[in-house]
Amino acid sequence: MKLLEQKITAEGKVLPGNILKVDGFLNHRIDVPFVMELGKEIARRYENSGVTKILTIEASGIAVATAAAFYLNVPLVFAKKHKSGNISDNVYSAGAHSFTHGNDYNAVVSKEYLSEKDNVLIVDDFLALGSALECLMNIVHQAGAQVAGCASIIEKGYQGGGDRIRATGVRVESLAIIESMENGKIVYRPDEGEAK
Amino acid sequence: MKLLEQKITAEGKVLPGNILKVDGFLNHRIDVPFVMELGKEIARRYENSGVTKILTIEASGIAVATAAAFYLNVPLVFAKKHKSGNISDNVYSAGAHSFTHGNDYNAVVSKEYLSEKDNVLIVDDFLALGSALECLMNIVHQAGAQVAGCASIIEKGYQGGGDRIRATGVRVESLAIIESMENGKIVYRPDEGEAK
Repeated sequence: MKLLEQKITAEGKVLPGNILKVDGFLNHRIDVPFVMELGKEIARRYENSGVTKILTIEASGIAVATAAAFYLNVPLVFAKKHKSGNISDNVYSAGAHSFTHGNDYNAVVSKEYLSEKDNVLIVDDFLALGSALECLMNIVHQAGAQVAGCASIIEKGYQGGGDRIRATGVRVESLAIIESMENGKIVYRPDEGEAK
Repeated sequence: MKLLEQKITAEGKVLPGNILKVDGFLNHRIDVPFVMELGKEIARRYENSGVTKILTIEASGIAVATAAAFYLNVPLVFAKKHKSGNISDNVYSAGAHSFTHGNDYNAVVSKEYLSEKDNVLIVDDFLALGSALECLMNIVHQAGAQVAGCASIIEKGYQGGGDRIRATGVRVESLAIIESMENGKIVYRPDEGEAK
């Protein structure tokens, strides 16, 4: 999505260790009118996919997932992060590793809010190693539901998580895919999903 | 807001210990079209207040704060919860107590994203003892910014936090105020803020 690539290049900061900081518009301060456009673009890409529900994980995925759910006119469920393994019987849960925070957690969703009738679009802000998306897909499968696909705002293509998931046959749409960030210069993968 | 009161009465569950469970539409599964209407109503109540920014706290306030920010056409900042006291110099932080989780935490906002030029509307999903709102007001004051007011979706009037904050002269708008939940019957305070 050209507008997003321009925004990342203009406002993102590449920090030492190949860390991309976009908390000025995406995950601390949120440019809401812009994030609504991102949600609209996700909705456009999945509008004919029979999505019944969006699943994301707290906290920074919630805003863009809300926007996508608004334009697809479906409910949103957000998984909660639990640090302990002490999980009740009334939930689906799966473990994941946070690349950003360097810790492990369990994602938890109440069994009330996912069913085998659901066709679920999984949405998150970042896609790096793919741990969060795989964890959420695991939860969808536990519920006997279908995965309609995944959507992320920014994929770090060089970390391989997105392509590994695509190789399993799951549709993954990322609105910007970064191929490299050498010397602070951000290079994007050509976007095949955007409307011409 | 009559529609909200009807929704709480129809879909909310009163659990032992006077706990109101609304995670079927507000804070786990999110009825996004409905939550957008809640955000629109918050925006309507503050449309002439010169709000420059909305401040909320992760995680369950983010969806409705995104909706309110969309209709007010302002950015949103969400405070992050830190368990440790190990906070950097580049942030504002203040302590709060979670009534829901029974623990203490620090709310943290980067100094980059609040300034003395801001007139801040503080939004959260629940208002009980008022600890989260007071903590966020503290952060706004640290930034030298103004508090335009506070908005919550559901206020537990019998816990007194909202009225204590109103008594200090701060405007607090709650879209539904619960006066009592005796024997599972929810009684609402008359709503003076709704458009006739």
